[in-house]
Amino acid sequence: MSAVPPGTLHGVGVGPGDPELLTLRALRILDDAPVIAYPATTRGDSMALAIVDRFLREDQVLVPLPLMFSPAQTPDDPAYDRAATVLAAHLDDGRDVAVICQGDPLFHGSFIYLLERLGPRYAVDVTPGVSSVMACAAAVPRPIVHGAEGLAVLPATADEDRMAALLSQADAAVIMKVGRHLAKVGRVLDGAGLARHAVCITRVGHADEAIRPLREALALADGVPYFTVVLARRA
Amino acid sequence: MSAVPPGTLHGVGVGPGDPELLTLRALRILDDAPVIAYPATTRGDSMALAIVDRFLREDQVLVPLPLMFSPAQTPDDPAYDRAATVLAAHLDDGRDVAVICQGDPLFHGSFIYLLERLGPRYAVDVTPGVSSVMACAAAVPRPIVHGAEGLAVLPATADEDRMAALLSQADAAVIMKVGRHLAKVGRVLDGAGLARHAVCITRVGHADEAIRPLREALALADGVPYFTVVLARRA
Ligand SMILES: C[S@@+](CC[C@H](N)C(=O)[O-])C[C@H]1O[C@@H](n2cnc3c(N)ncnc32)[C@H](O)[C@@H]1O
Ligand SMILES: C[S@@+](CC[C@H](N)C(=O)[O-])C[C@H]1O[C@@H](n2cnc3c(N)ncnc32)[C@H](O)[C@@H]1O
Repeated sequence: MSAVPPGTLHGVGVGPGDPELLTLRALRILDDAPVIAYPATTRGDSMALAIVDRFLREDQVLVPLPLMFSPAQTPDDPAYDRAATVLAAHLDDGRDVAVICQGDPLFHGSFIYLLERLGPRYAVDVTPGVSSVMACAAAVPRPIVHGAEGLAVLPATADEDRMAALLSQADAAVIMKVGRHLAKVGRVLDGAGLARHAVCITRVGHADEAIRPLREALALADGVPYFTVVLARRA
Repeated sequence: MSAVPPGTLHGVGVGPGDPELLTLRALRILDDAPVIAYPATTRGDSMALAIVDRFLREDQVLVPLPLMFSPAQTPDDPAYDRAATVLAAHLDDGRDVAVICQGDPLFHGSFIYLLERLGPRYAVDVTPGVSSVMACAAAVPRPIVHGAEGLAVLPATADEDRMAALLSQADAAVIMKVGRHLAKVGRVLDGAGLARHAVCITRVGHADEAIRPLREALALADGVPYFTVVLARRA
């Protein structure tokens, strides 16, 4: 049994890429946390860490969580169990842990699967972040949704028929996790009458940011990266 | 003809209520802008202004835009034409104007209707903000959407049958602009099998923030305010 009270698990949204899109609250939590954990590829690359590294100090412990592009990205992936075990050890020793999350932590963020595992056992505090969806719309700029419109938000990894069913009832759409599914995205948006004014936004806030009509993106020989959002509206 | 180059129209997301959810970029744009415009009620009340007032200076010109709770909140409301005319005068005189927007400017924000009117004539720069949706999820905390799920985002002001149609195809839902439409929201979520775990979040980040199961909110004698989001998920 530990003599110290357990630490708090912080989920900290750091925005989609531009470090200026960090909030004051995110900066405060990061500054106060002795342990900073970040989702990374198995090679150790991390977009979230690249966004905040200029704000970190030498005395903070950095913990890579090899969660990204893991072969089976399902909620029961053992990679999440292992990450939760590593974080639990710090929390049990009384250290607060800040898990930095690209965009917003609870909107398609892997923090969700850590919250599931650690939420029942530890105090949790979440700092919402600017989502890539909002930053992509701002970069164009164009409205995401307004008035009485219904919006469908879908990952391009979803089943094509299920995508088509939701999109057929929507006035506007946001498609995430596009990458190699771009042709499917083109088909379902077209089928729903949403393709015409659709825009493809890649790596917003990064040096290689790109904004293109969906039509143009579909013609690219190399396709588009995973970090791409498609915004579509009926009008 | 004006001798100076026209100013830039800035749409600045200031987050849903907690001033700590402002981004560094929002603070920089606000600090640099000689003119700060804010959506307000006809009485002059403004949630957006209350969020940022501590960051403003005496020498900045404050311009209220009486856009909120106007009787006909449609994109062609003449209130938007009048607001655009007022802002155009500042822009023509070479002054940058920062329109502060609660949450994110392009996600159900009235900035959309100013962008429509002024975008074709002036340089525009949009700073995305933390949306109320993300802040509401963080306050609970609970996931908004993850994995391959399809999310429906709807205002409670939409037609009941159209809401039901979109929700029937969704795994998760976000309902905005709830206010006096709560009973309708309860009906459509129930019909779509989404009511059971639904949560009602009111005025997140404000002193009177409230988080309740939808079931409990439906039993309130006084209902819930307009500044309420309902988050729902199938599981
Ligand atoms: C696992 S989700 C994480 C979303 C994140 N939590 C958020 O709120 O933005 C990853 C997807 O978000 C989108 N995304 C994230 N960052 C992006 C960026 N900088 N530019 C464009 N899309 C981005 C892409 O669709 C990507 O496939
Ligand atoms: C016209 S929309 C503006 C949304 C805003 N642009 C955003 O990104 O959050 C107003 C609706 O947003 C939601 N909302 C805004 N601020 C909120 C808050 N502090 N707490 C709960 N809901 C809020 C409510 O559903 C409200 O009816």
